[in-house]
Amino acid sequence: MQQNEKKTLRIGLLGFGSMGKTHTWSVQNLPFFYASLPFAAEVVGVCTTSQEKSERVADEFGMKIATTDEDVLINSPDIDIIDICTPNIYHYKTLKKAIGAGKSVLCEKPLCVSAEEAKEIAALPLFGGQICGMVFNNRWLAPVMRAKQLIDEGRIGRILSFEGKYLHNSATDVNRPAGWKQDSTVCGGGVLFDLGSHVIDLLGFLCGPLVEVGGMSQIAYPTRKGRDGQDWETNADESFYLTGKTKDGACGTITVGKLQVGTNDDLSFEIYGERGALRFSLMEPNWLYYYDNTATDAPIGGMRGFTRIECVSRYPDLCFPSPKAPAGWLYGHLASMHAFLSAVADGKPFSPSLNDGLYVQKVMEVAYTSDQIGGIRMEVPPCS
Amino acid sequence: MQQNEKKTLRIGLLGFGSMGKTHTWSVQNLPFFYASLPFAAEVVGVCTTSQEKSERVADEFGMKIATTDEDVLINSPDIDIIDICTPNIYHYKTLKKAIGAGKSVLCEKPLCVSAEEAKEIAALPLFGGQICGMVFNNRWLAPVMRAKQLIDEGRIGRILSFEGKYLHNSATDVNRPAGWKQDSTVCGGGVLFDLGSHVIDLLGFLCGPLVEVGGMSQIAYPTRKGRDGQDWETNADESFYLTGKTKDGACGTITVGKLQVGTNDDLSFEIYGERGALRFSLMEPNWLYYYDNTATDAPIGGMRGFTRIECVSRYPDLCFPSPKAPAGWLYGHLASMHAFLSAVADGKPFSPSLNDGLYVQKVMEVAYTSDQIGGIRMEVPPCS
Amino acid sequence: MQQNEKKTLRIGLLGFGSMGKTHTWSVQNLPFFYASLPFAAEVVGVCTTSQEKSERVADEFGMKIATTDEDVLINSPDIDIIDICTPNIYHYKTLKKAIGAGKSVLCEKPLCVSAEEAKEIAALPLFGGQICGMVFNNRWLAPVMRAKQLIDEGRIGRILSFEGKYLHNSATDVNRPAGWKQDSTVCGGGVLFDLGSHVIDLLGFLCGPLVEVGGMSQIAYPTRKGRDGQDWETNADESFYLTGKTKDGACGTITVGKLQVGTNDDLSFEIYGERGALRFSLMEPNWLYYYDNTATDAPIGGMRGFTRIECVSRYPDLCFPSPKAPAGWLYGHLASMHAFLSAVADGKPFSPSLNDGLYVQKVMEVAYTSDQIGGIRMEVPPCS
Amino acid sequence: MQQNEKKTLRIGLLGFGSMGKTHTWSVQNLPFFYASLPFAAEVVGVCTTSQEKSERVADEFGMKIATTDEDVLINSPDIDIIDICTPNIYHYKTLKKAIGAGKSVLCEKPLCVSAEEAKEIAALPLFGGQICGMVFNNRWLAPVMRAKQLIDEGRIGRILSFEGKYLHNSATDVNRPAGWKQDSTVCGGGVLFDLGSHVIDLLGFLCGPLVEVGGMSQIAYPTRKGRDGQDWETNADESFYLTGKTKDGACGTITVGKLQVGTNDDLSFEIYGERGALRFSLMEPNWLYYYDNTATDAPIGGMRGFTRIECVSRYPDLCFPSPKAPAGWLYGHLASMHAFLSAVADGKPFSPSLNDGLYVQKVMEVAYTSDQIGGIRMEVPPCS
Repeated sequence: MQQNEKKTLRIGLLGFGSMGKTHTWSVQNLPFFYASLPFAAEVVGVCTTSQEKSERVADEFGMKIATTDEDVLINSPDIDIIDICTPNIYHYKTLKKAIGAGKSVLCEKPLCVSAEEAKEIAALPLFGGQICGMVFNNRWLAPVMRAKQLIDEGRIGRILSFEGKYLHNSATDVNRPAGWKQDSTVCGGGVLFDLGSHVIDLLGFLCGPLVEVGGMSQIAYPTRKGRDGQDWETNADESFYLTGKTKDGACGTITVGKLQVGTNDDLSFEIYGERGALRFSLMEPNWLYYYDNTATDAPIGGMRGFTRIECVSRYPDLCFPSPKAPAGWLYGHLASMHAFLSAVADGKPFSPSLNDGLYVQKVMEVAYTSDQIGGIRMEVPPCS
Repeated sequence: MQQNEKKTLRIGLLGFGSMGKTHTWSVQNLPFFYASLPFAAEVVGVCTTSQEKSERVADEFGMKIATTDEDVLINSPDIDIIDICTPNIYHYKTLKKAIGAGKSVLCEKPLCVSAEEAKEIAALPLFGGQICGMVFNNRWLAPVMRAKQLIDEGRIGRILSFEGKYLHNSATDVNRPAGWKQDSTVCGGGVLFDLGSHVIDLLGFLCGPLVEVGGMSQIAYPTRKGRDGQDWETNADESFYLTGKTKDGACGTITVGKLQVGTNDDLSFEIYGERGALRFSLMEPNWLYYYDNTATDAPIGGMRGFTRIECVSRYPDLCFPSPKAPAGWLYGHLASMHAFLSAVADGKPFSPSLNDGLYVQKVMEVAYTSDQIGGIRMEVPPCS
Repeated sequence: MQQNEKKTLRIGLLGFGSMGKTHTWSVQNLPFFYASLPFAAEVVGVCTTSQEKSERVADEFGMKIATTDEDVLINSPDIDIIDICTPNIYHYKTLKKAIGAGKSVLCEKPLCVSAEEAKEIAALPLFGGQICGMVFNNRWLAPVMRAKQLIDEGRIGRILSFEGKYLHNSATDVNRPAGWKQDSTVCGGGVLFDLGSHVIDLLGFLCGPLVEVGGMSQIAYPTRKGRDGQDWETNADESFYLTGKTKDGACGTITVGKLQVGTNDDLSFEIYGERGALRFSLMEPNWLYYYDNTATDAPIGGMRGFTRIECVSRYPDLCFPSPKAPAGWLYGHLASMHAFLSAVADGKPFSPSLNDGLYVQKVMEVAYTSDQIGGIRMEVPPCS
Repeated sequence: MQQNEKKTLRIGLLGFGSMGKTHTWSVQNLPFFYASLPFAAEVVGVCTTSQEKSERVADEFGMKIATTDEDVLINSPDIDIIDICTPNIYHYKTLKKAIGAGKSVLCEKPLCVSAEEAKEIAALPLFGGQICGMVFNNRWLAPVMRAKQLIDEGRIGRILSFEGKYLHNSATDVNRPAGWKQDSTVCGGGVLFDLGSHVIDLLGFLCGPLVEVGGMSQIAYPTRKGRDGQDWETNADESFYLTGKTKDGACGTITVGKLQVGTNDDLSFEIYGERGALRFSLMEPNWLYYYDNTATDAPIGGMRGFTRIECVSRYPDLCFPSPKAPAGWLYGHLASMHAFLSAVADGKPFSPSLNDGLYVQKVMEVAYTSDQIGGIRMEVPPCS
């Protein structure tokens, strides 16, 4: 009975690439991982560019509506939440419509393809109970959540220096056709958009916003195969190197790229404060490395050293599987979805917000501009 | 249409502790992870010791039958497979009934509580299409599958030495009530049954069967709290140390325990051959460490060294998420379930078999006997 | 002036294989590494089996006496300390003579080739200022010294379980001629003597003495090349697997071998206590891994996790090079020599003592006996 | 006899801080580590700013000449080599005199305090047998030497991206008085000079010279204690972040700092090529991590992964201690000194040369200029 009285959050999903599928997985898996959820959630409909694909997906994953027209979902009274997993270039128009239609909205990163678009979106008025937010799934990895706690508790003190990296290896294969993520006419940018947005958000979340950045882009393969198999002029950065300062004076670098062989999904950061330091790598998703600089420094070592904190699967509200079972990449998306849906169910604001998305957009835009004029450091305009 | 023509494998699940839930998760998640599955699968019914619990579970996870009487499932014409996730002591009786009823059976480790029971079970006649097998989920971790490949290809040559360990930390908290896994009257043994069975199977799978073992058990806390909160005499080993030889002359040790603080789910092995070596740890589930002793050994290092092979999520038939997304503990169960259901769908024998379960049972029994008479090494009787 | 008034400790060195050279290096390097040494030290003479070699060594390393007759050094009034680096089988006779001659004695491990010999040696009366001790150089690695401190401070509480390993790869090359360390007629034993003695001492030092052990030896290559290039029957264990209990009830295993490809100088231990755990590997000589089980265990990790304590080069009295400069293998010997010579200079007892050497001898002898009768666990007779 | 016929290289040492002592250690330790050296070497004299110190050092380490006047050594006919270990600001004048006096010269990094000075020095004419070179000791670590081999063999192909870091933690203690290395009036620069010079040389050596760099400096503590204990305005960068491109188009970053708590002597690099990648950290001095991107990429991992090449102590000409004994920081200096003295003995040019020193100086100077004008990337003028 109680089960039936739960509010069901009804989701309309736009796009069913890897993110659309991941979001569906997250929604459908909530009952396994979270005990006594106070809400139910259902992906009610899906929109892709092909009716055949939409129907196949709907059939396979139990969705009621299959369409190629996003307005069907955006305007449906049976849908509470629009979940945007389409290519970046379409986000802006969809966001405007969905927010205008009074829906709650969850948007995959990056928010838009320009700061101007993003600014407009972040300024849209919201109505009662309308909750909007971004998917920055890496915020929701247990070690990242633990890092945030430690920073907020003052465990590493004033932050002095940082390094963020996100390295893939896909761009070294020249014969592999460029996908939409490599096409700046669809993506709005290159690897800085695709991978850099994650790192910029993560370091902003942990270290505070960047106020000044300089950029250096790299295209190692000016010509490669396009999606049609023809020769194609690379129009998007394959690696990007950023230097920056936060408003509190911390300095550091961000490196993102798809030219780095030997990497898998190598997102990592190092954060150095006055009282301690933090290190994390997504390829070791069970651990946060924490250094307590206030520990005793005595001969033969005292107590100084990095502690590999056991984050493993110890989310506060996760009931499955064992809290000691090694965690994987999916947990970030699962916890992100859980937090967003909880916010919607409770009618409370969600963070990362659209404004957080705007911040990331601004940093990327300034970094690209800096690169174009020789790398000089430029101010990032404040977000509010 | 094609979707509808797929054969649906109908599962009756006995027990819904952590393993019952994990198996349900695996079954329900197959469509996400495996593209174009040639079969469908459904957990049709669940049996627990409480009707209330069975109904709650059935409601939450969409099962049709909720019961406290396993015979309802075992004898149901609407069920093809009995999946046994009950305490060890009940396996024997259930296995006999389910196999006798012509069902395919998947049985959580260990097979039974004695070698005698296990022997009888492994000898039961099977009828056409009846597929039976064990859940030794760690065989199905990508690095373990890769280890098996490398061994079968002769990459490490004749195996000379091995070490297997499975370490938990749960038994050092004396105030934590003993669960059924700590109660040998329900479990049939102690940590050797619970964790040791995994290691014995894994090393048997990779190095060939042990033919001689000696054992040493340890109870560090002779008195602890029982499940009723009262003082309770510990009746099961909290750590177990085994030395053994394989039929090919490899020697080594197996250490399992729940007394090891600082561990999470620390299953690991090292295997040393004439031509190479392998190392794995479940807490680093993305990698297999492989040493090629035939590589050049030249000044300043040559090419000798452990290669951390990127297993990550690169299962041959996994389509979700990215093959480079860090994997977690659940993948072992997912792949185990996929392989078993594929075997059932195809009517082909499944390995690990009940006979593999019998082998593990024999090793454990001999190890316990050896321990009781002072640790002298004893022969493990062959399995067939 | 003050410099000239320092007492000079005059050493007579027996043997100039790798250990003889290492000891000479240690003595001659003390002034670089230790500030304001209160004594001076000099290797005054060397004895090897070849006069030509003795002279070459003496010439190269500035020693005054070159001989093939150890009595020349043992009986010289110009020598205070006899440093024994000869093959094991010769230790007993030399020890008796040197101790009888009133010399201080430093003896490479193992003390003798039998417990009976060792017992006699350990019982020899010493005269005023006569300081005798063993070289168990691994006790003097910074992380091992730190481990001892932590244990003595009660940081890991009652020790429940241990594992010690020392793995080399030299025995897998069948064409490599056996050296004296592989010849039990010279060495007194096999790898248990050569590598096992280190581990037995180390774990005894850290966890307290073993009172019960069982053994399993392994010879993987019954025939190999001898030192004369001829076929040779292997007469010494190539790997050895030991299970044991300490007097305080800790249980565990020791594995030593030269059959393990992929290893270099892989000495390691894991020690599990009620309140914490310790891990060390000689191949990572800069760090001790320490787990504090009393740290907070909260969601998303709390403060639980292994801390990699920075031991690096932070010996309390080392002045060179930087305390943060990565340390190597030589530091163990350097610090061992420094401690022994300091003890001699001060006329204070040195530990590891000859009695510690006797303890190791007894454990090895019992382990060999156990192996010969099938691995049954046997009592280790107490040392005093 | 033969011993006496060897040519003895006579060294005059200027400065006896940590580098002066390290060089002395290296010279005096050569006979232990290198078998049958074709030359002998002796530190004949030492010059420091205090006669008392010079005498104490000379007495302790067996040097004949103790002086406070470098000209005594530079002009002595009994000295072949001037070894410069003085503060940076004095290098220029000393180099001119020593080279002018016909001596071979070994100079600690950096070469000078300005590119102009360095250019003049690198252009000085040398006479027959006069060998000059730089101490960039990290080039001589076994894993770095192995990295160079692999790159030269084409194992990683065209280099696309790099990262170099050298992180210390000394500048976060505001109460620790600034030493000369923190005083740009003595050092000529800050951490970019002290630590950055190592990284710039190392990456230049491995990846080819940088042709374009942008810089960002950081002073986190504008006021700290000076060497006199008084408040002191920090005049030198405490961290420095550099982005750059090599002449072959590789892009990357260099980060150096003394603000990074949790570090010891954390020099590291990552180099990404088309066919492979390399990683190294000085705090793991036994290993080079090498990724072979031409290895098979098959399901469950194929053979792809980083191989931790065992460099350990496997210098081609090192005879002590075991090639498998873990190596430490001193090996870089030892091998550097061995190579330089071998070059002098053979009358052959030595690399790293003074021109290599000039290159490093230019990069640092351009990076500082870039920083002063907002970080815009600037061309590094070619060195010859």
